[in-house]
Order: sequence, then structure tokens, then C-alpha cells
Amino acid sequence: MEYPSKLVEQAVEEISRLPGIGKKTALRLALHLLKQPESQTAALSESLKDLREQIKYCQTCHIIADTEDCTCQTPSRDTTVICVVEDTPDVLAIRNTGQYNGLFHVLGGRISPMDGIGPDQVKIDSLIARVKQSGSEVKEVILALSSTMEGDTTAFYITKMLKETGVKVSTIARGIPVGGELEYTDELTLGRSIATRTLFSAD
Amino acid sequence: MEYPSKLVEQAVEEISRLPGIGKKTALRLALHLLKQPESQTAALSESLKDLREQIKYCQTCHIIADTEDCTCQTPSRDTTVICVVEDTPDVLAIRNTGQYNGLFHVLGGRISPMDGIGPDQVKIDSLIARVKQSGSEVKEVILALSSTMEGDTTAFYITKMLKETGVKVSTIARGIPVGGELEYTDELTLGRSIATRTLFSAD
Repeated sequence: MEYPSKLVEQAVEEISRLPGIGKKTALRLALHLLKQPESQTAALSESLKDLREQIKYCQTCHIIADTEDCTCQTPSRDTTVICVVEDTPDVLAIRNTGQYNGLFHVLGGRISPMDGIGPDQVKIDSLIARVKQSGSEVKEVILALSSTMEGDTTAFYITKMLKETGVKVSTIARGIPVGGELEYTDELTLGRSIATRTLFSAD
Repeated sequence: MEYPSKLVEQAVEEISRLPGIGKKTALRLALHLLKQPESQTAALSESLKDLREQIKYCQTCHIIADTEDCTCQTPSRDTTVICVVEDTPDVLAIRNTGQYNGLFHVLGGRISPMDGIGPDQVKIDSLIARVKQSGSEVKEVILALSSTMEGDTTAFYITKMLKETGVKVSTIARGIPVGGELEYTDELTLGRSIATRTLFSAD
């Protein structure tokens, strides 16, 4: 593509590094910014810089936070249960369900030997330490990991490492999504949903 | 939506002002940046700032350019014809066809009384002045405007204003797109393509 200016080319180059944004969209965005007040671009540029430079991660649960002590310290939270997730968006998704009021622990990834990511690259050690340090306050660790080979590997590893602490380890249910129809559900999910069926009460 | 941090919220706010990007996509982009090296975000932030602050528009043809004298001054261009377009992307689109080697004139919009945009808000005066100043070097003005009410209004106005200069005014052909099938072409386009039919030679 031919660009009208070096500055536009540079901006397109940088914008199109973002996931899901190609050169054409990047050009459209850059030209759009040029038509808006200068203050808008300044605010965007500044907010990105601040985001990357000033962001902190909670030292306990590794959630993105403004300070190093995040909401995991809020007294209203149920401190007897820790939900282990792979990344920050998962925390938001689970919070948005309104079904969970416990603590979180963000691994920052999952064990994936294929990509050279071992147990040391994700925050498993700090999870184990956290459970141990809590004395016996933490009663349960819920694994909310993705239902993939890597997610399962991570789950097995964590379970093994937590064994000596005696804490209860559970995993979120895998099964048919709410609203899902049997005939369109894939065999693996259906098989698993039968194997892990739960008692049903009509009361 | 609940955000893990004020910084993330601010970034999402700014990113989602861009056209076609909602809050969810903005959040995904912000969290993506947090996983990349800090230098990437710095480069993005910087390039946007530079783009908006340093960009220039050619004083003659109003194309986005790095300097105030743009490629419209290149001697290899055909200086007897000016193609009038609404905006910079149109210039790129026409350049990419490889079918045109003349000059450009970017109006920066089109006359639209509904939106309160009159002839003074677009660069029509400077087009007229440009044609007049060229002596009789400019022989033809090609109007490459969008095929809408506003585009047509702008075309009529420019044609009227150029009348006294005696320059030839043409408009790009409206008709069936290359590869288009008759039965799927809308009636207006088809009607116009018949009215403005061109001589066909089998030589």
C-alpha cells in the first residue's frame, strides 16, 4: 500500500500490530484520528502510555490493579476459597456472573510444553505458598481453567502440588452450555457431561 | 462493565472512541498491550502523537503530506488534469488503480446543507483559484465524488463555479461494477448506465 505520508505509515505500522487489526483498518483509524480534535489523539496516546508504564499487579493474587494491594484485601470477600484462572479477562468474566465472592489467583498463562512454558513460568509456586501461608483459612481452591490439553495439564499439576496442603480442589463444571441443545453438542462435551452428571432434585 | 484498574478503564474509554471498536474489543486490545513488551506500547503511543501533531497538508492540493509541498509538485505528473476527491483515502484508492497520473485536489468533505456544511467549509475556492492561477495549463477537472445527493450537489456547484474558466469538467463513470451481473444491479445504477452508455468498438 502507498501512504500519503511517513507519519501515517508509521502510525499504520504500529496500529496494525494490534490483534485483529489489519493495515486497511489501521489506515482508516489513523485518518479518522486526523479528522478529530487533537485532544482526542493526545488523550488516547497518553492513556496507552500510562497504562503500560504505571500498571501494577497485585503481589498476592497477580490481578491487574492500580496499587500493589488490590481488592483481594477487601474484608467483604470470602477468604476461604481461591479461584484460579489463567488471565485477567477470566477474573472479569467470573466477577460479572455475580456467582462468586471469593478470592482470585491469576496464573498469567498455562503450562504448555509445546510453547516452552513450564510450571515455573506461571504463578503456581505463589499459589501454593499462598494456600500454605493462610494457615487453614483457605478451604477450597477452584480451578477455572480452559478446557484444553494445556488447561488440563495445568489443573493436574496444581492438584498434585496442593495435595500435601490438604485443601479441597475443585474444577468448574464442563457440560452443555445453558440454552444448548443436545443434538448440536459435540461428543466430547456430551460424554463428559454424562460422566460428571449431578443429582437433580425437583423440590 | 467492571474494570480491574482505573488505568485500564481510561485506556478502554479512549480506545473505544475509535470507529468500529466497542468496549469489549478495546479491553481486549488494552490487555493485549499489557502482555507485550513495553516498547511496543511506547511506539504506538508515540506514533499516534506524532501523527496528530506533525502532520501537514499540502497547501496546493490539501493532501496529507510530510511537508507543505507534496508529490503534486513532482515533474513526472500530468499537470493538465486535476482529479477532485472528497478525502485522502480516495486519493490512495485512485492512485492504486494505476490509471491516473494527474494532479489531485482534496476537498476535505462535500457540500451537505443537512449537516450545515456549505461550499465555504470545503476547499472549493482554492480549487477555482488553482485552475485560474495555472493560466490555461489545467485543461480538465475530473470530479471523482461519491454517487450520493451530497456528492452530486458538490459536483453541480463546482461545475457552475468553474464555468467561467472554460476548463473541461468531467465526472467518473457511474455504471455496473466490473464483474457485476445485470440482474443483481439496482435500478438506479442500471438506468444511469443505459443513459450514459459509451460507444463500443470491437477492434
